[in-house]
Amino acid sequence: MPETPSPTLESILSRIRPELARVDRWLDRQFEPDHPALAPLLAHAARFRGKRIRAAQVLLVGSACGGLTEAHIAVAGIIEMIHAATLVHDDLLDEAEQRRGLACVHLEWGSHTAVLLGDWIYARAFQRSTELDDPTCSRVLARATGRVCRGEIHQNLTRGDFELTEEDYLAQIDGKTAALYQAGGFLAAHYAGAGGDLAAAAGRHGLLAGRAFQIIDDVLDLEGDEERTGKSLGTDWARGKMTLPLIRLRDRLTGPERRRLGQAFGSGADRSVLFRGEFADPLREEIEATKSEAMRLLDEAAGALAPLPAHPAREALLELTRFLGTRRR
Amino acid sequence: MPETPSPTLESILSRIRPELARVDRWLDRQFEPDHPALAPLLAHAARFRGKRIRAAQVLLVGSACGGLTEAHIAVAGIIEMIHAATLVHDDLLDEAEQRRGLACVHLEWGSHTAVLLGDWIYARAFQRSTELDDPTCSRVLARATGRVCRGEIHQNLTRGDFELTEEDYLAQIDGKTAALYQAGGFLAAHYAGAGGDLAAAAGRHGLLAGRAFQIIDDVLDLEGDEERTGKSLGTDWARGKMTLPLIRLRDRLTGPERRRLGQAFGSGADRSVLFRGEFADPLREEIEATKSEAMRLLDEAAGALAPLPAHPAREALLELTRFLGTRRR
Repeated sequence: MPETPSPTLESILSRIRPELARVDRWLDRQFEPDHPALAPLLAHAARFRGKRIRAAQVLLVGSACGGLTEAHIAVAGIIEMIHAATLVHDDLLDEAEQRRGLACVHLEWGSHTAVLLGDWIYARAFQRSTELDDPTCSRVLARATGRVCRGEIHQNLTRGDFELTEEDYLAQIDGKTAALYQAGGFLAAHYAGAGGDLAAAAGRHGLLAGRAFQIIDDVLDLEGDEERTGKSLGTDWARGKMTLPLIRLRDRLTGPERRRLGQAFGSGADRSVLFRGEFADPLREEIEATKSEAMRLLDEAAGALAPLPAHPAREALLELTRFLGTRRR
Repeated sequence: MPETPSPTLESILSRIRPELARVDRWLDRQFEPDHPALAPLLAHAARFRGKRIRAAQVLLVGSACGGLTEAHIAVAGIIEMIHAATLVHDDLLDEAEQRRGLACVHLEWGSHTAVLLGDWIYARAFQRSTELDDPTCSRVLARATGRVCRGEIHQNLTRGDFELTEEDYLAQIDGKTAALYQAGGFLAAHYAGAGGDLAAAAGRHGLLAGRAFQIIDDVLDLEGDEERTGKSLGTDWARGKMTLPLIRLRDRLTGPERRRLGQAFGSGADRSVLFRGEFADPLREEIEATKSEAMRLLDEAAGALAPLPAHPAREALLELTRFLGTRRR
């Protein structure tokens, strides 16, 4: 990827501002209550909207591959809803307190309602997908959602497993994160009338970019600065989740050193122990190597866009891909 | 409904034994793990199978309305999966310990995995529904699942509300229980090639039978015998859920009596207080009146089957409807 100054997410999204606003209005309609008792909960859930990188991906791929249709607004909205449902459940399970400056659903309405709200958002998203004339959206997203859940279950069942393989780690992040980006790229090209090859290319871009996104997220959780990122870090280490730099550090250690790392991993100690003493230097090396690998994945993701027609939206998509490598939160 | 001796569930299901066995094999395939780490969890979830009244409904309606197809096996399996997903989440939220003699998922693998397993079962069920050529199944079931979740959320948000109206109670049970029976009846007729009128009649049968089923379930929870039913009872009262006999008891009380019932409701006292002292007689009257009303609903449900062709499967469906009124657990 060329070494140009990174555009901000704001500037990338500014090119699709009207279309993103349509997705927002579409999302607003999904959260309209049909009973007054549900109104405060749904109003809260509707305000719970993120950076909408997934919606932006759908809108940019669709624009580049033949132009946006009504279906793109729905596909972008449906993917954001599936993502929102996973966040409601994740926050509950991680006992998070705040998301985007709002109290998490489970703190405000209890864990019952948080589980059920997540379920309802999934169901409503599927319902909308089945209303499109072309069933590709519902087929692809039901499969992708199954992969997301399976990836998360797999990660949960291997918590505390110091021997987690790199292969298993990659399978987990492909499920929990990359599958939805892959589906988004594929569907955006498909609903723009692109042929199978182009849709596969856009899907491959999503898969690789999503994989890099999660690897970087996990590196930030390991070494990031809480003040700078504005969120709690060190949670993977604290909860017994091995991530890429640690897996590689473990694999280069033998004998007593390896044993000591395993003991620290199972001890509940703060992640700062890793950055003091014997593990500090090799871990920093593995962190740098992991970051370089994530950048190579993003290069590969950008390369996967080569078959797409030259179009300002394709350029914006390349910038969005680059942005994923520079983000610090 | 004629006063004939009630057939057992066993004898009703014996007529569709081979078809139910096909649904079981279909369900077994859905729970095959694609990674060894998932094997024990999915094997556990696969054993977690109930009375399959919902599958029986689909098979009987389909047989009566024109004959079973491959799609019926899938529709029956998908509905059982959606029901299973709600049970995994319900058990977690109700802090249940056992279901059908097996430890609940959250006790064996933790609440993270229980939430995610429920999500995965939903997603897998939707995926299978999108694979049918005719999108009616995925459309109808996505909408019904949304109603199930909304009904449950509504019930949760009104917990502890002594003033819950009868109208709200009925809307909640129609969502959380009757909607899925309605969808099952409608889809079974539709996939047997029945016209819209017949499918609507089968759906109406499901709606009314499902409503009666839940009213009876709630009455059993209020007055049932734990030893006889083999499950914990009194949970609605303990968790602040007003159910039909209580709503009606409240509505016939005024002044200090009504206030005392409200105080007992909010006190966390055991349900046995209701059956001693001033509330005992009027409550018993309301329980009997509620049971009679449930029987009338089942009569109405049976009547809704009148447009279906005369067929042994329709007779079995009438017996299944009658069975719902006689069950004690």
